[in-house]
Amino acid sequence: MINTLLSAIEAELQSQVMRLDQPRTRHFHEMLTYHMGWSGEGAGPEAAGKRIRPLLVLLTTASCNSEWLRAVPAAAAVELVHNFSLVHDDIQDNSPKRRGRSTVWTKWGAPMAINVGDALFVIANQAVLDLQKSYPAGTVVEAAAILQNACLELTRGQFLDMSYEEKTNLAIEDYWPMISGKTSALLSVCAQIGAVLGNADDKTREAYRLFGHHLGLAFQVQDDILGIWGDEAMTGKSTASDLVEGKNSLPVLFALGRQGKFARRWKQEPIKIEEVAEIAALLVDEGAREYAEKLAHEETREALENLEKAKPRGQAGRYLLELANKLLKREQ
Amino acid sequence: MINTLLSAIEAELQSQVMRLDQPRTRHFHEMLTYHMGWSGEGAGPEAAGKRIRPLLVLLTTASCNSEWLRAVPAAAAVELVHNFSLVHDDIQDNSPKRRGRSTVWTKWGAPMAINVGDALFVIANQAVLDLQKSYPAGTVVEAAAILQNACLELTRGQFLDMSYEEKTNLAIEDYWPMISGKTSALLSVCAQIGAVLGNADDKTREAYRLFGHHLGLAFQVQDDILGIWGDEAMTGKSTASDLVEGKNSLPVLFALGRQGKFARRWKQEPIKIEEVAEIAALLVDEGAREYAEKLAHEETREALENLEKAKPRGQAGRYLLELANKLLKREQ
Repeated sequence: MINTLLSAIEAELQSQVMRLDQPRTRHFHEMLTYHMGWSGEGAGPEAAGKRIRPLLVLLTTASCNSEWLRAVPAAAAVELVHNFSLVHDDIQDNSPKRRGRSTVWTKWGAPMAINVGDALFVIANQAVLDLQKSYPAGTVVEAAAILQNACLELTRGQFLDMSYEEKTNLAIEDYWPMISGKTSALLSVCAQIGAVLGNADDKTREAYRLFGHHLGLAFQVQDDILGIWGDEAMTGKSTASDLVEGKNSLPVLFALGRQGKFARRWKQEPIKIEEVAEIAALLVDEGAREYAEKLAHEETREALENLEKAKPRGQAGRYLLELANKLLKREQ
Repeated sequence: MINTLLSAIEAELQSQVMRLDQPRTRHFHEMLTYHMGWSGEGAGPEAAGKRIRPLLVLLTTASCNSEWLRAVPAAAAVELVHNFSLVHDDIQDNSPKRRGRSTVWTKWGAPMAINVGDALFVIANQAVLDLQKSYPAGTVVEAAAILQNACLELTRGQFLDMSYEEKTNLAIEDYWPMISGKTSALLSVCAQIGAVLGNADDKTREAYRLFGHHLGLAFQVQDDILGIWGDEAMTGKSTASDLVEGKNSLPVLFALGRQGKFARRWKQEPIKIEEVAEIAALLVDEGAREYAEKLAHEETREALENLEKAKPRGQAGRYLLELANKLLKREQ
């Protein structure tokens, strides 16, 4: 079933992006297909990413005992929004690499990359409106409104993330509003839109929304833990450790709030590669790892409890639980 | 009447942008209100711009004998799209000033400015969906789809504009696809959405669409003429002449196609301020001014013919004709 869904998602994404495949804008189209992982050096499934968000939409719709095929344009829309945000994020963070390949802005410059992100967002909006082929207009408007709310959350999270770079007095309270916007909003919307398109009742929709929300938070906290104590982070490749990157992740913000030895070191100057193991151990000593693991555990529990409340049905329901478990217990 | 419309537009814009006016994102909200001309140094009507696009929406709806007040969210949406594109355009063009004030990216940096543009676009999308308060969902989806088509045209025009900077063999055929996207698409959409929200029949909608399309082209060609031979351009302020800026405007592309003296000079090195009068005269000699004026005249005629076909009614209809005439016969 998963492979059928993934093929349908990929075909829909390609046909949506094809809107730019016209004589004068071939090269523009190529920039989008490169980013999506379909063309250029290193193209392939690795470059495309796991398409977790669109899978979540379709599995949710199918778990409501509804035909997932009709929901495919919405699945494409959330994946396009995700990719729009990645293209702009890479410019904002000055990141040279994404999934092992050069980022759009390093290949074609920031001005073109801004426009590539904008186009992906426009096409996402068009994809949502394509739901009108299979759904009543009222449902289309509802799905579009849910998606746009998440997009505004994305810009909020992005703003907070960027403004934190200049702040020195950050603490744990600053974490959740940023991460809700940056990670959790879009995952939450996937489950929520999936439920709307599955024609679920209000209670079930709310359960799916909360499932997605907590799934997103748990996923992000886990990501933060791996970014410091994961195998790759600890082996000392400069780009692998969030400590070297100076990322305001949960363990870091927790320890900053403690105002101890870590906080003093963090405020001095960027962490060097050779210090990574020592600083990671310091964070453990100050309770940051335990704290983050406790929160990851709590968010995981809340995600799974809400999924249970939503009563996902049939084979799709089992795959949905499997997907959630994979995201929650993932290794690197 | 115009002042009533302008007040309603401004109030709606402010209430839409207010979505970001929350404790943690006050500063983000401030970046948007600065760009919109409501706050910061130099705030005021000059900084806000003329709000031509939203006026066009509301006057069209009213000219169809329909209540304009219901269409206000759509009017706000097109103005927000316009401003989203300006914020990104200023980064892409490296422009330090917009309407006499510092651009968003010069004040807060390009990463923040990218996000400000993104947020304006999201809020535009949300504004369109707010039409559901007064219109059936089918009409909302129709208006949203029309707007998104124009947005994709915008990104196409932007792509062409940027890719022309590296091309040396440009000619007149390259002008229209770029300008249709960059200027005409959004003006066309204003009239088209106005007609949809005014519940006009298909023939009338098409006449309004074409009116907006030709209005946009005529406006742009006029702008190009003023950019070379307007008073400001000729008096030698460096930023005033499109020749110094190296802009691929209609007269320039015409003369490049002629492959004469101008084309040879243009390809050598950027035009200096002290050469502006001489090069402008050379363009006249090579027929570029006459050509551009003929086209401006033709597009103007087509715009007005289509407006006549649309049969705009009442006071709003007279104002619509007045607005069109003002845009078409404008001095600097």
